[in-house]
Amino acid sequence: MYDLIVIGGGPGGYVAAERAGALGKKVLLIEKGHLGGVCLNEGCIPTKTLLHSAKLYKNAKNSESFGVTVEGATYELPKAMAWKKKVMETLRKGVAFKMKHHNVEVLEGEAKLISKHQVQVGEQNFETQNIILATGSSPFVPPIPGADLPHVVTSTGVLNIENLPKRIAIVGGGVIGMEFASYFSMIGVEVEVFEMLPKLIPFMDQELMKILTKSMKKGVKVHLEAQVTSIDDKDVHYQHKGETKSFEADLVLMAVGRRPNTMNLGLEDLSIEIERTGIRVDETMRTNVPNIYAIGDVNGRSLLAHSASRQGEVAVSNMFEECRSMVWRDHAIPWVVYSAPEIAGCGMTEDQATEKGIPFKVGKLPMKASGRFIAEQGLGAQGLCKVISHADTGAILGVHMIGGTCSEMIAQAATAIEAELRVQDVQEIVFPHPTVSEVIRDSLFEIQGL
Amino acid sequence: MYDLIVIGGGPGGYVAAERAGALGKKVLLIEKGHLGGVCLNEGCIPTKTLLHSAKLYKNAKNSESFGVTVEGATYELPKAMAWKKKVMETLRKGVAFKMKHHNVEVLEGEAKLISKHQVQVGEQNFETQNIILATGSSPFVPPIPGADLPHVVTSTGVLNIENLPKRIAIVGGGVIGMEFASYFSMIGVEVEVFEMLPKLIPFMDQELMKILTKSMKKGVKVHLEAQVTSIDDKDVHYQHKGETKSFEADLVLMAVGRRPNTMNLGLEDLSIEIERTGIRVDETMRTNVPNIYAIGDVNGRSLLAHSASRQGEVAVSNMFEECRSMVWRDHAIPWVVYSAPEIAGCGMTEDQATEKGIPFKVGKLPMKASGRFIAEQGLGAQGLCKVISHADTGAILGVHMIGGTCSEMIAQAATAIEAELRVQDVQEIVFPHPTVSEVIRDSLFEIQGL
Repeated sequence: MYDLIVIGGGPGGYVAAERAGALGKKVLLIEKGHLGGVCLNEGCIPTKTLLHSAKLYKNAKNSESFGVTVEGATYELPKAMAWKKKVMETLRKGVAFKMKHHNVEVLEGEAKLISKHQVQVGEQNFETQNIILATGSSPFVPPIPGADLPHVVTSTGVLNIENLPKRIAIVGGGVIGMEFASYFSMIGVEVEVFEMLPKLIPFMDQELMKILTKSMKKGVKVHLEAQVTSIDDKDVHYQHKGETKSFEADLVLMAVGRRPNTMNLGLEDLSIEIERTGIRVDETMRTNVPNIYAIGDVNGRSLLAHSASRQGEVAVSNMFEECRSMVWRDHAIPWVVYSAPEIAGCGMTEDQATEKGIPFKVGKLPMKASGRFIAEQGLGAQGLCKVISHADTGAILGVHMIGGTCSEMIAQAATAIEAELRVQDVQEIVFPHPTVSEVIRDSLFEIQGL
Repeated sequence: MYDLIVIGGGPGGYVAAERAGALGKKVLLIEKGHLGGVCLNEGCIPTKTLLHSAKLYKNAKNSESFGVTVEGATYELPKAMAWKKKVMETLRKGVAFKMKHHNVEVLEGEAKLISKHQVQVGEQNFETQNIILATGSSPFVPPIPGADLPHVVTSTGVLNIENLPKRIAIVGGGVIGMEFASYFSMIGVEVEVFEMLPKLIPFMDQELMKILTKSMKKGVKVHLEAQVTSIDDKDVHYQHKGETKSFEADLVLMAVGRRPNTMNLGLEDLSIEIERTGIRVDETMRTNVPNIYAIGDVNGRSLLAHSASRQGEVAVSNMFEECRSMVWRDHAIPWVVYSAPEIAGCGMTEDQATEKGIPFKVGKLPMKASGRFIAEQGLGAQGLCKVISHADTGAILGVHMIGGTCSEMIAQAATAIEAELRVQDVQEIVFPHPTVSEVIRDSLFEIQGL
């Protein structure tokens, strides 16, 4: 009898297993593919590895004004792919080590629930007190004629191409689409992005979006309100404002969304409630069956690796009596788009505050307010930091940034929002100079009428 | 009659002037050289600009394993110096704009106090309610025979060299010394560092120091407990464990410390108390003359640009009745060394906690615990994150890091320490994945027996 069986070894599942293991529980983690899940094997890690190689290539070619002249710079896809593979192997070993360190048993195989307390893998049956479903999500491919052609790939397939395309069509202007648009444009591929909606990355602050679009203008052509209608060997056909147009592309990336992996788990037989966006859970990550929890992409609440990890911690804290019960709070979950320039945000945007009827004030500054930003990014670099605060209480509601190393700066904002700090509190915190992070603090002084 | 006269336009003085100006006060800022002070003109900004160019050069040459091959990379000092000049000019204009924006009058000239309420510049006399002394510090050159030779420079002079040396001797293994050691070694100059003490950067966590030494080993030779006794045209002569040795160097950098600029200000006539480390102030930055304040390097409390800025804010808050009076707190002042790898810290080290008799626990992880760190820095990169917490209360006392982009991550730690968060509080904050910043949170889970 296990205390906990976790189905799925991604950032949700392995963190949950690790935390329960650290409590001394008997834990089994079942994974049908590789440890690390989509994040490590088909998502965050491989894309960030490739993006970094592209940034190195771009820097090598464009550092003359900083004093570095390079004769010939070549981007070698096979070497970048080999490095990506090495990173993934190293990190998988890291996850396996963590599991071993916390006495978590790991089993390779496809799991199915056969009762509230029984999980089947192949011909083996395992009994358990608690179950965590952490099966993640898969790319959704819309039923467009030609979407099954060999040169049409999802975010998984695009990570295994052997030759660089000359022209890539990216269908979908969300986070995944924009990260790959950045990647391919930096290494010299002609990129066009097709987004059905009138804006890119819809949850993002719209002022940041404009800066992203402007920054990418050189290498990426974005078509908004453009619907791809069919794909053939040569062209992507799309409709834009009533007109039918086409773009010649030798690679097509489908990045229109993801679907929760709820199939073949036996959920229906246990009458576990499933909604369109995923398995239904409460704020403790419990499904309608009290000893069964669902975390990460499969519950559709927040399709982010770190959300999955946190939900794993929340689930485990509600499972065992000795733990202080925690709940899932989503008002201070940071997110990052690893485009060039990077984008990072945490908390409410202006639009969201308006929608909720919350009175707010805004303080904002261009990233160029930071001396380090100018010194390292150059005078042409774009960037913005925007802080949203509650007009009455002064509480910091959101921080939204584009440019520089904002991905590494946003944890400060998450800390301030989660700790319910007010503008005045953060104004009294000293940030190191010269860093780009100072621009967060400096933006607070731009909030009028405090 | 001015409300405030600020003497010195560095990060202490211009921030104080800006804050007072924003309150609608009549403010005069007097600067004898360039706005921005040492930080902008001879310190933080020019060094970081040069260091970044060196990092670009190093990356251009060493990115083959990431997939980027470069035929020939050249570091061109004149171009790097021209870019540095451009950055400085841009930022000076930025400071001038801020002053104008907040109606701060700026006057070029050398100021002298002629009474508690009167400041003289040349033949002009100005009356004022309050005075802030923000005159900074200057490099200290020890009386070593040969220290006045033309190839012996301070941190100011080294920023204006026209040709790269072949071999540089750096006298002093503090922050400035180690930053220049990193710079010169990255661009291929042979570097030897001579430090009198048995350790580099004495206030730094000693485990970090070992990693720094190890990382620099290839390009920099460090001599600890080595006393430079004389310098001649060709050699630096030093004593090490009783033996006299020498190092041939065509450039010698004196980086042994700085002295507060307390001279020629008329302080003695007003009986303003001066100690060995600088002008004596209380926790509101007041000198023994109640309407005269001293901030930044000149009071010797914390030789950091951001400390000077914060002290300026503290001084202004105590000067005017409508402000909530603030005091200078130094337990959460972050600091960064822009060496390669970068080092950043905030709060107590283990040694300091031991010294104060505070019971503490330590949680630490190599930076390689972060997937992004591996993906971007490679498998050979060194790094460590260490969190110190109070053994009884769980309060976070200190965070110390080496590697990656820790300079931009340390503001999170400053926020946690200043907001008096406990280990459990920060464990509940979600950090974005994959970022290097996660290693701070992950280190908290390594603290045993919580």
